Amino acid sequence: MSLTSQGPALAKSISPHPFDPLAPQEIRLGHRILQSAFPGVKLRINRIDLQEPIKKDVIPYIEAERLGKPLPQKPARLIYSYFHRLDTGACCKALLNVDNASVVSVKELPPGVQIPIDVDEITDIENLCNRHPAVLAEIEKLKLPPGVTVCNDPWMYGSDNANETRRLFQCFMYVVSVDHPENNHYAMPCKFSPVFNGHTRELVRMDYLPGGDDTRTAGTQPWKPVKAIQYAHDLLDEPLRTDLKPYIVQQPEGPSFFVEGNKVHWQKWRFRVGFNNRDGMVLYNLTYDNRNVLYRLSVSEMTVPYGDPRAPYHRKQAFDVGDVGFGLNANQLTLGCDCLGHIKYFDGYRSDSKGQPVLLKNIICMHEQDNGLQHKHTNYRSGAATVVRNRQLVIQMICTVANYEYIFAYILDQAANIELEVRATGILSTVPFDNENGETVKWGTNVGPGVMAPFHQHMFSLRIDPAIDGFKNTVYYQDSVPLPEDEKNPYLVGYTTEETVIDKSNTAETDINRHRVFKIRNDNIVNPITYKPVAYKLQAAPSQMLIMPKKAMGYQRAEFASKPIWVTKYQDNELYAAGEFTNQSKRAQGVETWVQRKDSTENEDVVLWHTFGLTHNPRIEDFPVMPMERVSVMLKPDGFFTKNPALDVPQSTQNFNKSTLHPESCCESMKSKI
Amino acid sequence: MSLTSQGPALAKSISPHPFDPLAPQEIRLGHRILQSAFPGVKLRINRIDLQEPIKKDVIPYIEAERLGKPLPQKPARLIYSYFHRLDTGACCKALLNVDNASVVSVKELPPGVQIPIDVDEITDIENLCNRHPAVLAEIEKLKLPPGVTVCNDPWMYGSDNANETRRLFQCFMYVVSVDHPENNHYAMPCKFSPVFNGHTRELVRMDYLPGGDDTRTAGTQPWKPVKAIQYAHDLLDEPLRTDLKPYIVQQPEGPSFFVEGNKVHWQKWRFRVGFNNRDGMVLYNLTYDNRNVLYRLSVSEMTVPYGDPRAPYHRKQAFDVGDVGFGLNANQLTLGCDCLGHIKYFDGYRSDSKGQPVLLKNIICMHEQDNGLQHKHTNYRSGAATVVRNRQLVIQMICTVANYEYIFAYILDQAANIELEVRATGILSTVPFDNENGETVKWGTNVGPGVMAPFHQHMFSLRIDPAIDGFKNTVYYQDSVPLPEDEKNPYLVGYTTEETVIDKSNTAETDINRHRVFKIRNDNIVNPITYKPVAYKLQAAPSQMLIMPKKAMGYQRAEFASKPIWVTKYQDNELYAAGEFTNQSKRAQGVETWVQRKDSTENEDVVLWHTFGLTHNPRIEDFPVMPMERVSVMLKPDGFFTKNPALDVPQSTQNFNKSTLHPESCCESMKSKI
Repeated sequence: MSLTSQGPALAKSISPHPFDPLAPQEIRLGHRILQSAFPGVKLRINRIDLQEPIKKDVIPYIEAERLGKPLPQKPARLIYSYFHRLDTGACCKALLNVDNASVVSVKELPPGVQIPIDVDEITDIENLCNRHPAVLAEIEKLKLPPGVTVCNDPWMYGSDNANETRRLFQCFMYVVSVDHPENNHYAMPCKFSPVFNGHTRELVRMDYLPGGDDTRTAGTQPWKPVKAIQYAHDLLDEPLRTDLKPYIVQQPEGPSFFVEGNKVHWQKWRFRVGFNNRDGMVLYNLTYDNRNVLYRLSVSEMTVPYGDPRAPYHRKQAFDVGDVGFGLNANQLTLGCDCLGHIKYFDGYRSDSKGQPVLLKNIICMHEQDNGLQHKHTNYRSGAATVVRNRQLVIQMICTVANYEYIFAYILDQAANIELEVRATGILSTVPFDNENGETVKWGTNVGPGVMAPFHQHMFSLRIDPAIDGFKNTVYYQDSVPLPEDEKNPYLVGYTTEETVIDKSNTAETDINRHRVFKIRNDNIVNPITYKPVAYKLQAAPSQMLIMPKKAMGYQRAEFASKPIWVTKYQDNELYAAGEFTNQSKRAQGVETWVQRKDSTENEDVVLWHTFGLTHNPRIEDFPVMPMERVSVMLKPDGFFTKNPALDVPQSTQNFNKSTLHPESCCESMKSKI
Repeated sequence: MSLTSQGPALAKSISPHPFDPLAPQEIRLGHRILQSAFPGVKLRINRIDLQEPIKKDVIPYIEAERLGKPLPQKPARLIYSYFHRLDTGACCKALLNVDNASVVSVKELPPGVQIPIDVDEITDIENLCNRHPAVLAEIEKLKLPPGVTVCNDPWMYGSDNANETRRLFQCFMYVVSVDHPENNHYAMPCKFSPVFNGHTRELVRMDYLPGGDDTRTAGTQPWKPVKAIQYAHDLLDEPLRTDLKPYIVQQPEGPSFFVEGNKVHWQKWRFRVGFNNRDGMVLYNLTYDNRNVLYRLSVSEMTVPYGDPRAPYHRKQAFDVGDVGFGLNANQLTLGCDCLGHIKYFDGYRSDSKGQPVLLKNIICMHEQDNGLQHKHTNYRSGAATVVRNRQLVIQMICTVANYEYIFAYILDQAANIELEVRATGILSTVPFDNENGETVKWGTNVGPGVMAPFHQHMFSLRIDPAIDGFKNTVYYQDSVPLPEDEKNPYLVGYTTEETVIDKSNTAETDINRHRVFKIRNDNIVNPITYKPVAYKLQAAPSQMLIMPKKAMGYQRAEFASKPIWVTKYQDNELYAAGEFTNQSKRAQGVETWVQRKDSTENEDVVLWHTFGLTHNPRIEDFPVMPMERVSVMLKPDGFFTKNPALDVPQSTQNFNKSTLHPESCCESMKSKI
């Protein structure tokens, strides 16, 4: 079959929905299209991934679906690829059309623009480092006893020099004292750190890491044996708890959801679960009771700047979406470990460096959970109570970024709320520190002998592409303020709200002291009872923004993290808050650039970006693995309905819930067990 | 048996722990002691309740318990009572000693100081109002059709006059259009509102309520029939959802907790569940792995000022702890409705107006819940993952305050965290409003025809009496701030923390822009790895404080709600943030007074009070019953341990959790059901 006939044939055979993730056949076809455009040239594929479909072409299609009308033509099925030409060494980006197996565009990226790190590349650099003579020479100096070895985590190099154009990796080295698949090498960081050029595979420099609170370094010294602080259960010294009893979720009639491909039906919600290498999990086309709510929802970026001022740590600022990709980092999940109850898994695919598809099995999970009471009222006269429980649908992805883990969950409920819950867990990024004699630093926490965890921030950008009863919306905020002290407010208790419309693309601040609430409304549709436009509100997570000053390079690379709220007018290809290329970026090309257009954003196709985060000054309790820290952002209807949309959820009853009463007389029999 | 021998006999027979709630026999004895002190005088009992034991006498006792040493003498078992002398009309307070059946003290309260409303009194006023000729005359004017009636909710009158000394009740009247135990009368507020004197039982005044956005009122007009907006399932017009499948929590080996009386053992936690009429649920003597963490934890006050400036609404400012009592308002819970899983209930008692005990069955519930993942790390090289789930213990109380509900839950986990979760639900307090022609007000939301829900705030005070590894603690706060821009911070990324010790009793502000964190430390015990004093941190809920200005009477009654953080030196009898007597108070006598002492609070027995709240500008979705709004405050170890205290929680496995895999092939068979 000729290449030009493969596209239409594939489109016919798998017929993907515009929001469906790439199928393995599409990755293969993409690779063939790409290779055919470069006859005789060897290509190293960095990524073959779904290109977001053109929104103006998607809307008629999904609106026809929603309204049960004849479907118009599907939008073009597009793929993009980042790749290296091995003849010239150039980094390139191509846009491909699957439908007709054609190349839409190819461009060579300017020097200094780095495409993300890919999975094969990390393994390659890791192996390169482990075998490099200069590294082996340093290891030799450690004079490690038999059975003790060294490993390394390659890091994206970060930026501190506007003229740097090499593709660099900084390898952090650790002593491995126990031969075990879950040994915690992060408890034993070494004081040398080689930097490699990813293209030339040359050692660029051997960095030495300081042992005190200034930047002085010493040559590599023999390792002082110390016991690693382990997290894995079979490496712990202490016994495990034996008094935790099983807790089993049973759904004898199955779940309340129904899945067709990647389309989910759950209660009055309908939506599509998307997946790509960069965002990982994406929710598309959320409707409630067949009314539009959101076009697209995803975590668009996340940056982690470290507060340790000592070189080379000043460059530690990961962009976990742009530098690598949450899709690539997502865990392949296991039944009964990551969720409880009745679990549906979704798979994804990535390409390898040869352009072949790699299955990412169980990369997203979905299940229901009970979250306590949703509403209750007891009539105090009659004693009669209406009680409704809060059943939720959880769509979850867990990303491992070397040492650290993020658990992302979109949580939908029966009252039309949409929550993004982020849990931070995993292992702190540690540095060596000579703390035998009570030494401390003012930018970190000692977490063990010889090991310190520096302060850092985790800054997330949630990209909300709303469709509140339609695709033209307005973002505004309301502050709660006292009424004037006049004759209409003689007792001074009166208060009201002040409203500010964001009518041009712009940023805004949160303000707890004024109870500032951001809302997204549809000016074209008025609620028949409140007489106000239908709206959803953002229950934001007001957070400390970037601590570093504006002139710091780390700030300029992550300006999205300098303001909690950004509003832009929708444009295709504006998906990522810090811009498309963050790896070794010198300055962002993201929301901070797009708001400058000062587009009209009143009753337009707008995008709301919410930056929130954690200033994480580690507790010692966060080591050797961190009890999860939770942050939550919600979207809630506010004048969207004419009453509580969960009124029709049935009463909570013992017949349905089958709870168990704790026996009153159990104490004596159990006392002996304590 | 003589009265003087009844005390010792009772002490011997029931032998309560100092933190145990009152037993019914103790209420009866308390009444007998009281009555014997007033021979021949008729008393109307307002309350007979547990008096907090003297802390200095308790500590040796609970420390001996903790350390397994011989127990010293118990602290005196004390009861207090509020009561009315029916001969003089005076309001009195007595302190009684159960151990020796004696009166410790009796005092007559000054005129104008009102004791709380009691349960019998509310019913009495409600009945009085319903039968009063002036009220009946107004009802007559409504010209209600057959089957349509009127009911009333008596409210605490509030305050707007420093000279008011009468005990007043304001009754809000509602049309009852459906004869059903869960008819929602709050959808149909009337425009007349009688005020009664609770002592003399006289009608003080008939207030008329405005129909527009100013204070103009009209005489009572015939009722315009309108359909009530109902919340009860069998009064809804729309059908109930039928696609919600059962979700059952099974604990085949029973719960992981063990209960002896009111002492709970769960994982490494030990604590006592206390109950009194005012606070309701109280947690005492929390230890983790036999180390002291907290002496006492309770929600000490909650005030709800309304933002509607129009008389008489300016007086609507409930103090739900001080004016009535969460213990008295707490729901008697039902298996399978309010919690899921294996449930332990605790009972409480109150006295009636005759001094006799009334059982409050199932007033507090306790159960375990699964809260997703606690920690996870995947070794990306080996793929090996350590996954630990977050099992929690929930101790819950649900309070109905006429129209509204609060769900309070203390949530303990295996990583030594303590959370207070508050859920606000129930029915909005509504007012009549003529909105047929699109009228709106700027301080409220139309929630139905003729009915509006004014803006208001819910301000909670969590009282934390800490015992971080001992009873002398220090409260301080840490801000995250950039390091100076000097040669030690050449790349400007460095940041550190600034520490401020609250060394004298004082208030403090939260500050998100500086990531301000409040901590409680024990200066006498240093963590051997961090080299810092052991500590817990408060994960506060920064909130808008009182919107009304300082000179408003409502502000002066609730000054605790003007600052988020208060630190005082412990004194017995300083338990309630707005003071002991809030009902019709003119000015608070609480934390705002106690901080003025400027006591030393460094390395002392300190109390940390956290005010947080909800500015609640109602959504129409909050009517006719409100989807819960959640606020959470946590206490987390921060340098208290030497590593993650949950490391020894066993791995999450399918063998233990028994989850179910969603079948891949179910789609076709289920499609027909949609």
